[in-house]
Amino acid sequence: MLGSTHGTLTTHFRARVVACGEEPHAAVHSMTAAAAEGDLDVSGRPLHATVPDLDRFFRPESVAVIGASDTEGRPRTGITRQLVAWAERVGARLHPVHPTRESVFGRPCSPSVADLPEQVDLAVLLVGDPLPVIEELGQAKVKFAVAFASGFAETGEEGAAAQARLAAAVERSGLRLLGPNTNLNAFEAFRDDLDGPAIALITQSGHQGRPVYTLQELGVRLSHWAPTGNEADLETADFISYFSQRPEVGAIACYVEGLKDGRSFLLAADRAARAGVPVVAVKVGRTETGARTAASHTGKLTGADQVVDAAMRQFGVIRVDGLDELQDTAALLARARKPQADGVVVYSISGGTGAHFSDLATGAGLKLPILSEGKQRELHEWIPGYLNVANPVDNGGHPVGDWRGRKIIDAILADPDVGVLICPITGPFPPMSDRLAQDLVDAAETTDKLVCVVWGSPVGTEDAYRTTLLGSSRVATFRTFGNCITAVKAYLDHHRFATSYRSPFDEAPRTPSPSFRKAQALMRPGHQLSEHAAKQLLRAYGIRVPREQLVTSAAAAVRAAGLVGFPVVMKASGARLAHKTELGLVKVGLTSASQVRDAYRELTDIARYEGIELDGVLVCQMIERGVEMMVGVTHDALFGPTVTVGLGGVLVEVLHDAAVRVPPFGEDQARAMLGELRGRALLEGVRGGPPVDVDALVEVVLRVQRMALELGDDLAELDINPLMVLGRGQGAVALDALAVCR
Amino acid sequence: MLGSTHGTLTTHFRARVVACGEEPHAAVHSMTAAAAEGDLDVSGRPLHATVPDLDRFFRPESVAVIGASDTEGRPRTGITRQLVAWAERVGARLHPVHPTRESVFGRPCSPSVADLPEQVDLAVLLVGDPLPVIEELGQAKVKFAVAFASGFAETGEEGAAAQARLAAAVERSGLRLLGPNTNLNAFEAFRDDLDGPAIALITQSGHQGRPVYTLQELGVRLSHWAPTGNEADLETADFISYFSQRPEVGAIACYVEGLKDGRSFLLAADRAARAGVPVVAVKVGRTETGARTAASHTGKLTGADQVVDAAMRQFGVIRVDGLDELQDTAALLARARKPQADGVVVYSISGGTGAHFSDLATGAGLKLPILSEGKQRELHEWIPGYLNVANPVDNGGHPVGDWRGRKIIDAILADPDVGVLICPITGPFPPMSDRLAQDLVDAAETTDKLVCVVWGSPVGTEDAYRTTLLGSSRVATFRTFGNCITAVKAYLDHHRFATSYRSPFDEAPRTPSPSFRKAQALMRPGHQLSEHAAKQLLRAYGIRVPREQLVTSAAAAVRAAGLVGFPVVMKASGARLAHKTELGLVKVGLTSASQVRDAYRELTDIARYEGIELDGVLVCQMIERGVEMMVGVTHDALFGPTVTVGLGGVLVEVLHDAAVRVPPFGEDQARAMLGELRGRALLEGVRGGPPVDVDALVEVVLRVQRMALELGDDLAELDINPLMVLGRGQGAVALDALAVCR
Repeated sequence: MLGSTHGTLTTHFRARVVACGEEPHAAVHSMTAAAAEGDLDVSGRPLHATVPDLDRFFRPESVAVIGASDTEGRPRTGITRQLVAWAERVGARLHPVHPTRESVFGRPCSPSVADLPEQVDLAVLLVGDPLPVIEELGQAKVKFAVAFASGFAETGEEGAAAQARLAAAVERSGLRLLGPNTNLNAFEAFRDDLDGPAIALITQSGHQGRPVYTLQELGVRLSHWAPTGNEADLETADFISYFSQRPEVGAIACYVEGLKDGRSFLLAADRAARAGVPVVAVKVGRTETGARTAASHTGKLTGADQVVDAAMRQFGVIRVDGLDELQDTAALLARARKPQADGVVVYSISGGTGAHFSDLATGAGLKLPILSEGKQRELHEWIPGYLNVANPVDNGGHPVGDWRGRKIIDAILADPDVGVLICPITGPFPPMSDRLAQDLVDAAETTDKLVCVVWGSPVGTEDAYRTTLLGSSRVATFRTFGNCITAVKAYLDHHRFATSYRSPFDEAPRTPSPSFRKAQALMRPGHQLSEHAAKQLLRAYGIRVPREQLVTSAAAAVRAAGLVGFPVVMKASGARLAHKTELGLVKVGLTSASQVRDAYRELTDIARYEGIELDGVLVCQMIERGVEMMVGVTHDALFGPTVTVGLGGVLVEVLHDAAVRVPPFGEDQARAMLGELRGRALLEGVRGGPPVDVDALVEVVLRVQRMALELGDDLAELDINPLMVLGRGQGAVALDALAVCR
Repeated sequence: MLGSTHGTLTTHFRARVVACGEEPHAAVHSMTAAAAEGDLDVSGRPLHATVPDLDRFFRPESVAVIGASDTEGRPRTGITRQLVAWAERVGARLHPVHPTRESVFGRPCSPSVADLPEQVDLAVLLVGDPLPVIEELGQAKVKFAVAFASGFAETGEEGAAAQARLAAAVERSGLRLLGPNTNLNAFEAFRDDLDGPAIALITQSGHQGRPVYTLQELGVRLSHWAPTGNEADLETADFISYFSQRPEVGAIACYVEGLKDGRSFLLAADRAARAGVPVVAVKVGRTETGARTAASHTGKLTGADQVVDAAMRQFGVIRVDGLDELQDTAALLARARKPQADGVVVYSISGGTGAHFSDLATGAGLKLPILSEGKQRELHEWIPGYLNVANPVDNGGHPVGDWRGRKIIDAILADPDVGVLICPITGPFPPMSDRLAQDLVDAAETTDKLVCVVWGSPVGTEDAYRTTLLGSSRVATFRTFGNCITAVKAYLDHHRFATSYRSPFDEAPRTPSPSFRKAQALMRPGHQLSEHAAKQLLRAYGIRVPREQLVTSAAAAVRAAGLVGFPVVMKASGARLAHKTELGLVKVGLTSASQVRDAYRELTDIARYEGIELDGVLVCQMIERGVEMMVGVTHDALFGPTVTVGLGGVLVEVLHDAAVRVPPFGEDQARAMLGELRGRALLEGVRGGPPVDVDALVEVVLRVQRMALELGDDLAELDINPLMVLGRGQGAVALDALAVCR
């Protein structure tokens, strides 16, 4: 058993051990830094993100271009030219490096890194193989490097090995690397004439970031673009952490194909959540096709999508599907001030538009409060009495053509229940829409409340749109109902989330519980535990199991039944037993000694016939009344152990009605899991039946989380099914359990 | 019982009776016309849409404007001016009508309709109350009228009554009316310089049609716009029927707030389906807010949304949520030729773009075939070998800059498995994107296959977009991944649907089955039937029920159990009994005469205690093995009886896992219903169990449909729950049933 204990500790604290070893691996890079701070949870995982100081990466004072060229027609020449222009813009000194050239674009060339005229902040590597240069750069105390070369993890196993060597060299060198397989996006031109909070952009594929970059042409400020490529060293999480600390950043927009490390992503998201900086992300991998093609593009894990989705929600990352949603949502979240109320009013020049927009908005979960009678009377001063102004507010069109238009907008914005005013202008109709647009822009200047306009014309060259609406940074302008609703929902959700956010890392257990030692004694590495042993494991963590005894004779079974109390359930018990019911290895409702004796004989006969080795027969207390649920632990390739709760019994397999969370999470999330179940009404009592003990179910979920954290990688899988949840105040009992050790 | 029969017939054939009566109602207007054709189904509903001849409405030779004005500053003057311009464009003679004016805009004025210089095709009513004019118009043999006035059904009960009077006057007059509460949209300027199939547009709110109208500025042809307003006479269905017969119409786009009549909508959709003309619709009413606000706008029923959704799918109507989706989907369906294959290839200059787009596309159900090795070799002639060209095809960027770009596109389009090529260009990058756009346009000219481009730049003023892409009617250009995927999915689905469409109206029963007479004898108008009677009803329609006997003494119960066969189930039976289980009025698994005797006593004791009147106790055969489903009939306000199938037992209430259809529908739809259930795996056998008798379940659904059609409005509700579906070949048995008569 000591061997098992040792194995556990080795796994848990591998990060720490590796940090002192000789061959550190890029994957534990940030973990190492955190470990150095000494703050790890009970599973050996860090509790805080390391925030790299990337100021000199984005704003270097001096830059070396390794492999610079000015020979026309060569790709490197174009890149060098762009770097020269960029260095001039940001005021950095640029030093070309080339073994044979005297000068490049009129700047004196150094033959090697060692010959650079000064210690540079950033080296851009245009060479085919960056590996040999890394050590030189380290010796020259270069802070950052960017590697454009491709042919690494995105190409398969061999490339992955080359990338691992590159990562190791970077680790040794002390510099931080962006790439390989990245590009020039970080060094593009950013408009510096735009004010207010900016979007910071992180993309694993340059082309995919272009639409957000192009938003600058519509007046949306962009502060940074980090094209992370293969992430041999610096990863998406590092940039999220860094950007969330920058004062000019209002929102972080990400395009993610795969995550390098689940934990570092969560810690970065936690960092952003603490800072109240919204993170909006497209994450590829909804389908297997997407996961496969994404992996072949940057060579990273995509993770099980349901788990990624849950992890993002837990830490407030707003996941969207389209690049258009990414643009619109990030732009709104970056620029809109904190909401003063969560009520949304829809205001339009057409009852049809109001009805349609309200339908979609309420369907998406936005709250459209009915305006007070007083407010409605006020609006009817300017809007004909037969029109509906309860919300949506239909002005019938004409009032927007004169002084009444502005009055109406101001009156709506003055309502204390209203945090957001949305005006969908589905068609351009200059006699009305132009003045309406101007009134909205003017009104928005006088309020902190959010004013949104949907310009529904598919053309988009109209003056009211391009000049009036896009000319204002106070009005949020959209092109579709859908994107406006998605963005406003994200905006209200984000502020609700950020206001009440408590980091689960602050509460995460740091030392093993007393249960841990008991549990370790039960683990059998590489084996599935018998039902009896699995239940002992649950008991070690304070999870209730039925009264039961493991017996090896019919006479003992009868004695056990007497102790357990009739009626009893009897089950064959063995280390490799699953699907007992189908094999006839479960007998329920046994009410007499003779039935118990017969059942014992039958179960052992079947097992002998099927060639199944038993460690005995379980005689268990029979528990019939309750709702069958399941609680389990599954190991995710990206995030490690995850906790699942769902409908139990046969139905879990048919309906897949389950919710998942990545530890650490608190009681609030455990309760939220239950709210995600389609069958949640079962817990509230069906057909007038009494509600079940939800608190006990939540407690089991949290105890299973504790188990998952403490046993870590040693617990490959745990499945409590069914967990019978009894009436309120009566607890929950694990009727069957399956545990697999690793 | 004869009374009941007569009641049934009255209800069924009310349409016919009313047609000969004195006060015909607009709601039965089209039904009347169909009835005249004598083709009705067994429920008295018409089997064919009446297609109004609207040629002279959209292209009149002469128009009268009642209430015309040319006094500056008055709203009617603006409208008159627009009508004058429109009449000139379409070559119609325009006659102003006004009691006192000599002339309007230089045209001689008639003092009244009776004084018009010729018989006109169309009268536009600018008067506040159109009702008094209708009779005059009828006498003057005017074919069509348009009423702009508002203040009808959209304002409440009083308005609805005024609208009913208007509708009655229209019915008497013999003319057809558009409106009231409509506008000028039908008389706007349509571009006549665009070729190819057009979109015909139908909207219940003018403002909501503006985006589709504006598509003309992007080169999409629009042939008609019918703003139907309150639909006192002409309704959305009439225009769908008419447009589906017009040769220039490639697709019909609708914005629908509420449907006037469910049946006429289905018949119109059937008409379009037979003609192969796609109908794309936004239908408000996803939520209660939407339904309520829509009703207050045009005063129409929205119907239960799940039923509307099912009805649309049954008849191939493509439902979308946003006006942007309506535009993009209708434009694609109008213009794209029939697909030659359903395979979609995603082609991009970035692996990231390909991965992201493919992820969303496969998630939406598009098929992305892996290209053959031969095709991949061919593509690698122009694309570097390390890039993935299996599908998505990633060219890495550079090949689009030279002659290779076109070769690649042609090679993909030449693949016989490929029906659609989609090229997402997420960012404008002129060195690549401009030539790529031109190559795509050129290639599209040489093929009948569908070529789609997503221009992802949020700006949209770029040359490659506005000139190159929008300049081509052969390339379908989108602005977002999402809308492209929605439209392409709709395009492939539509053609699959249209190719295999068989109208269920052709197969609908016209005469009552022999079951009908037996069933009628069991109906008790205004009452809920006892379980026993409800089961007799099922038996009348050939639906199996357990062997059972209704008994009124303990001794009879014991005798019945002997006949039925042990073990038995015993249930209290009474006319107003529901939720028997909760009351303890069901006893299962009774295996002996003494248990039966005790159970009889207990059931009658409980009923007495609870004050429930029983007609006896049912002694039923016990059937344990099978999957519990439910099949039922519910009355929808818009569509009449609907048929539902879902998971049975307690779960149906918790999970709401059910599918619904509007009769008439065939066996294919009954099977499709099962495919929509989340718990459909239950039918295929759980945990290695055998699959159940799906054919028997389908047969029950079809027999229940027949019952719903024949009993019509007399059957308020039917609920077979559980229907125990046995093993394959063993049938399905209705274990419990609830029926409510009207």
